[in-house]
Amino acid sequence: MVMPLALLEKSLNKRVTLLLKDSRTLEGRLVGYDEFMNMVLEDTEERTVEQTRKIGSVILRGNNVVSISP
Amino acid sequence: MVMPLALLEKSLNKRVTLLLKDSRTLEGRLVGYDEFMNMVLEDTEERTVEQTRKIGSVILRGNNVVSISP
Amino acid sequence: MVMPLALLEKSLNKRVTLLLKDSRTLEGRLVGYDEFMNMVLEDTEERTVEQTRKIGSVILRGNNVVSISP
Amino acid sequence: MVMPLALLEKSLNKRVTLLLKDSRTLEGRLVGYDEFMNMVLEDTEERTVEQTRKIGSVILRGNNVVSISP
Amino acid sequence: MVMPLALLEKSLNKRVTLLLKDSRTLEGRLVGYDEFMNMVLEDTEERTVEQTRKIGSVILRGNNVVSISP
Amino acid sequence: MVMPLALLEKSLNKRVTLLLKDSRTLEGRLVGYDEFMNMVLEDTEERTVEQTRKIGSVILRGNNVVSISP
Amino acid sequence: MVMPLALLEKSLNKRVTLLLKDSRTLEGRLVGYDEFMNMVLEDTEERTVEQTRKIGSVILRGNNVVSISP
Repeated sequence: MVMPLALLEKSLNKRVTLLLKDSRTLEGRLVGYDEFMNMVLEDTEERTVEQTRKIGSVILRGNNVVSISP
Repeated sequence: MVMPLALLEKSLNKRVTLLLKDSRTLEGRLVGYDEFMNMVLEDTEERTVEQTRKIGSVILRGNNVVSISP
Repeated sequence: MVMPLALLEKSLNKRVTLLLKDSRTLEGRLVGYDEFMNMVLEDTEERTVEQTRKIGSVILRGNNVVSISP
Repeated sequence: MVMPLALLEKSLNKRVTLLLKDSRTLEGRLVGYDEFMNMVLEDTEERTVEQTRKIGSVILRGNNVVSISP
Repeated sequence: MVMPLALLEKSLNKRVTLLLKDSRTLEGRLVGYDEFMNMVLEDTEERTVEQTRKIGSVILRGNNVVSISP
Repeated sequence: MVMPLALLEKSLNKRVTLLLKDSRTLEGRLVGYDEFMNMVLEDTEERTVEQTRKIGSVILRGNNVVSISP
Repeated sequence: MVMPLALLEKSLNKRVTLLLKDSRTLEGRLVGYDEFMNMVLEDTEERTVEQTRKIGSVILRGNNVVSISP
């Protein structure tokens, strides 16, 4: 059994891909999270259907996150 | 009586099909979940009306999940 | 007075019709539920305006359910 | 002062009209409710802009209800 | 300082205008409310862009209310 | 450090501009609020893209408020 | 490990960029926040696809915030 938060813990300091409710994709290094699945990414790239751009560090509110791929 | 979380427990390490609120379908092996129905899938395939693609491991936030078919 | 959860209890092992927020209709045998109105259906048929298809067992998240008809 | 739940209590076994978030109207006899305003209706008629149809008994999730007219 | 619930209390038995999330406007006499801002109106008129109609008594779920004008 | 509720406290009896989720703007004198950021405005003007109109006193439910500018 | 709220704390009195659910971007100096990620910005600029405008101080409700870039 792999608890969802345990997999986040294992993903610390690794690159993850987040899908957000507004259908943007963020790819960055996961450097922190809390029990609400709020997350901190570094060296983040944001991808939409139109473009890709670097956005550096970002704090994500967990309730906007659909899925996280380690 | 089959409690919803008990059926998730029975589905561990088996393939399940998730329907998400954004109408994507994910099919993968369920390797973990928590009491909020956050889930961890492995060997996951994502299907939309346009395409099917492999997305490997994924953590799903429970509040984006509509239904789970074991 | 018929409490909503009491009517779910009485509907166990009987066929019920669920209307979901995404306007799909599910008809199946109710085999379980919890206090959040998460439910487990078996021998389920899903109906949309376009089609009807058998989807077997399914766990429904209560917050996607609009109404349940015993 | 008429507390909202007290008016529901007074409406037991009487016909009420519910407006749902999806803009359907349900008219039926209120036979039960709980503190979340989940409700049980009997002899229910559902009305949309297109049609009226009898749907018998129905359990409504309170968070889909906009208003209740005794 | 006028607390929001204190202003509701002061508005009891007076006519108020409610704006709902679905952009309908209800005007009626406020006869009750609870701490979730569920409310009871009497002699209510509902106004949409298309029409005005009398709907008598109505229980409103607080989470569908945007604003209340005494 | 300026806590959000402390800034509301400091704004009491001053004019503030609220942006609502339905994209209306309200400008009025803040005369009260509670811990859910429900607020009471007086001498309020409502502005939409089409028009500006005076709406006097208004109670706003906090969960419909996006931002408050003192 | 960088907890999300710890990164907000470190960002105090620095300029941050907020993305809101309604897809506006706010850039301003973060002068306060609480545990719900309600925030106070000063010297704020609001950017939409159409325009940029100065809006001074603003209190943001956390549940409208998608992401914060320090």
